[in-house]
Amino acid sequence: MIGFVINFEGSSGVPKYIQLYEYIKKEIMEGNLTEGEKLPSVRSVCEALKISKATVENAYSQLVVEGYIESRAKSGYYVIAFDDFTFTQLSGQEFFHEGQKTLIEEPVKFDRADEGTFNFNEWKKAVNRVLEYDTQTLLSYGDVQGEYALRYEIAKFIHQSRGGRCHPDQIIVGAGIQVLFGLIATLFRGVEDQIGFEYPGFSKGMYIFEDYGYQTVKIPVEVDGIDLKRLEASQTKIVYVSPSHQYPTGSIMPIKKRIQLLNWASKKGAYIIEDDYDSMLRYEGYPVPALQGLNYGKNVIYVGSFSKLLIPSLRISFMILPEKLMEDFNRIKGRYSQSVSKIEQLALAGYMSEGSFERHIRRIKKIYGKKNQLLIEAFKRYPTKNFKLIGKESGLHVVLDFHTDVAIAKVVTMAKSMGVLLEGVDEYPDNRILVFSYSGIPDDWIDSVVKEIVEISDSARKI
Amino acid sequence: MIGFVINFEGSSGVPKYIQLYEYIKKEIMEGNLTEGEKLPSVRSVCEALKISKATVENAYSQLVVEGYIESRAKSGYYVIAFDDFTFTQLSGQEFFHEGQKTLIEEPVKFDRADEGTFNFNEWKKAVNRVLEYDTQTLLSYGDVQGEYALRYEIAKFIHQSRGGRCHPDQIIVGAGIQVLFGLIATLFRGVEDQIGFEYPGFSKGMYIFEDYGYQTVKIPVEVDGIDLKRLEASQTKIVYVSPSHQYPTGSIMPIKKRIQLLNWASKKGAYIIEDDYDSMLRYEGYPVPALQGLNYGKNVIYVGSFSKLLIPSLRISFMILPEKLMEDFNRIKGRYSQSVSKIEQLALAGYMSEGSFERHIRRIKKIYGKKNQLLIEAFKRYPTKNFKLIGKESGLHVVLDFHTDVAIAKVVTMAKSMGVLLEGVDEYPDNRILVFSYSGIPDDWIDSVVKEIVEISDSARKI
Repeated sequence: MIGFVINFEGSSGVPKYIQLYEYIKKEIMEGNLTEGEKLPSVRSVCEALKISKATVENAYSQLVVEGYIESRAKSGYYVIAFDDFTFTQLSGQEFFHEGQKTLIEEPVKFDRADEGTFNFNEWKKAVNRVLEYDTQTLLSYGDVQGEYALRYEIAKFIHQSRGGRCHPDQIIVGAGIQVLFGLIATLFRGVEDQIGFEYPGFSKGMYIFEDYGYQTVKIPVEVDGIDLKRLEASQTKIVYVSPSHQYPTGSIMPIKKRIQLLNWASKKGAYIIEDDYDSMLRYEGYPVPALQGLNYGKNVIYVGSFSKLLIPSLRISFMILPEKLMEDFNRIKGRYSQSVSKIEQLALAGYMSEGSFERHIRRIKKIYGKKNQLLIEAFKRYPTKNFKLIGKESGLHVVLDFHTDVAIAKVVTMAKSMGVLLEGVDEYPDNRILVFSYSGIPDDWIDSVVKEIVEISDSARKI
Repeated sequence: MIGFVINFEGSSGVPKYIQLYEYIKKEIMEGNLTEGEKLPSVRSVCEALKISKATVENAYSQLVVEGYIESRAKSGYYVIAFDDFTFTQLSGQEFFHEGQKTLIEEPVKFDRADEGTFNFNEWKKAVNRVLEYDTQTLLSYGDVQGEYALRYEIAKFIHQSRGGRCHPDQIIVGAGIQVLFGLIATLFRGVEDQIGFEYPGFSKGMYIFEDYGYQTVKIPVEVDGIDLKRLEASQTKIVYVSPSHQYPTGSIMPIKKRIQLLNWASKKGAYIIEDDYDSMLRYEGYPVPALQGLNYGKNVIYVGSFSKLLIPSLRISFMILPEKLMEDFNRIKGRYSQSVSKIEQLALAGYMSEGSFERHIRRIKKIYGKKNQLLIEAFKRYPTKNFKLIGKESGLHVVLDFHTDVAIAKVVTMAKSMGVLLEGVDEYPDNRILVFSYSGIPDDWIDSVVKEIVEISDSARKI
């Protein structure tokens, strides 16, 4: 029979029964109390430690629940046997293992949004309205498809601004394009095992399908978009395209090819994933209408995102499924949970319905249009043969297509050390193009950043 | 040579060049202008329609960009040929296809949070603080792992409240458990192709691994948690458990079994996914400490969520990876984007650091503890042999384990028609248990809801 030696820390705020429980647990873990050993009776502990019966009983019953001790009828409490094991020391003083935060000097991220684009006050109002008036609905889990109010606004926006055509019931909201691609991969699971992707293209989309076990077929991009002959020659029945502003080359698919693509899909029973990520941002002329609107979206899965349009720290994307796929989704939707905060979904719905989003789009077109012009002028001021400038008419990035004389990896490293992020499109070594996002460069830096890039490319020449 | 007949709607706000562009596009789509036809010269259109040269040029150049017409040097603009295709009519008046919102009378969802639990004002303050002071960081994409400020608070919370032990660098934030499970499935891709799951258990977790092509192995749950012999007999090297409050049965895994499980993992080089979804909510006694803390989390992937603890409309979950898996993650993290809004991540970090979260936990323990007690008392008032009540000591649901005499599907249907949602755990027909979530039932309804359930179960008896 053993006795407990414990000093209760009265001022620590930790109830005595927990202090006693922790003490006994530690004794067992450290081997001071071993298998089959009998614990002192409740009464004797009360007397020895001058604590109440309830305190001891609570401590013992917690140890029973966790399986450290067992209660034997009419006999008392005994330590339970368990296998050899080295416990982590769990003293109360020990804080979590914080270690050192690894501080790496990150290059300036020019893919951020421009400071002047987002009206934080308007967004704050939209969020506060939800937190004041929609509290009842916020108490429950959201619709797996996304909130109807938001889907309604998206359907309206897509129709009015992109020439698309859909019912809010065909829209699925998700926390980023990758989450939605996971859902597409699931919808085609057991039916298709490969998918065509524009190349060069949106690698982060491709990876998701690979994660889901799909074979990805890279189909080259021509000046007017994806190579249709190569697509037709492939066996794929799903293809990813960004027809209104190909990522990253910026090419626009003309109506002739759009129709050929739609006819291919219709004939083959295939599906086109149309990524319309930033085609609102055309600075000269009018945004090119979406593929989705051309045939009621019968073979088109339209994908859009608010990250580029609104602000990158919000993670709200959506897709429009053709009715046939929507039926498939409805059969399995009970298996999934919605991934976007209901608060932010409803805030965005309000922000759109009262016109803030439309004003925002007008504002960013102006701001980014100016930045785009400054950038193009700067590249004219520093002519170079080291790379060609591609895709400069719209969006938030341009592409530098490098001459083979230039050591492209060296350019990336040097640029990084000077604070400029140039990103390769994928991991393939024959890749000669770098994506240069400029949305976050302050207007008065543009000239010097462009100058820097040209100088870097000069010093990375092999000959 | 053709002429254009167009009435400009001056007051519509649509620029004239777009009206002209839409008009010509429609003429082409409807076959009134056909392949190879020459468009009237810019000059002649100016004169005929009394519009400026720039207006016509802008309209023509938009049509060139979209590939409806082409410009031939020194000759003019010609309609481009394209394949047969039936266009959707795209008149300006036509609104999106809104249809009818299908309004189905949904049963009262008792899995929502109780009204008094969440302090919307405190949350509003936390969000507003971010939208006022963190605007610079909100302009850029977030850390794929989640914001450091939030991971720091989570690490602290896990240590102080769950006995876990980790560095913030081992934490990954994601928009719901399913998103994180997708990541786990990816981390083991090509290494493991099966995973063990407690049965009955968390089906929505299982589905994700199946979507990623894994074979799921159902391992029965005993009164003290997963059947270890069956686990050892299986070939799986990843296993999902909820040891501190098994879902749905509520069983608690005793320390002896925890150690056996950890030793199994350590010997086999296997991994345990520990889902700790609501084990903070133990009403009698103290929460059972997490498995993760027992051996520095070497073979444990700890998963937690704020949906149950805070409010279901927020979608913020997290996991703690062992260092070995963290290295794997760091190798591939460039392929992924963070799925949770940076605004809400930073708001939650602030909410936690200033103590609101701790106060919230204390508050909900009190509110749900009372509800739990009322529920247990009500079930005592209406004794029945139709089902056994299981897992009633903690969490936000109880389990009804039905006698074979009761037609369980009938119970679900009848309950639904009376506004009570009873959910099966999975799709398997031998399942005799229903999950009854009570977090959202107002206190003064509990008696009548329980009475209803018992009456329903009586009328669903087969004999």
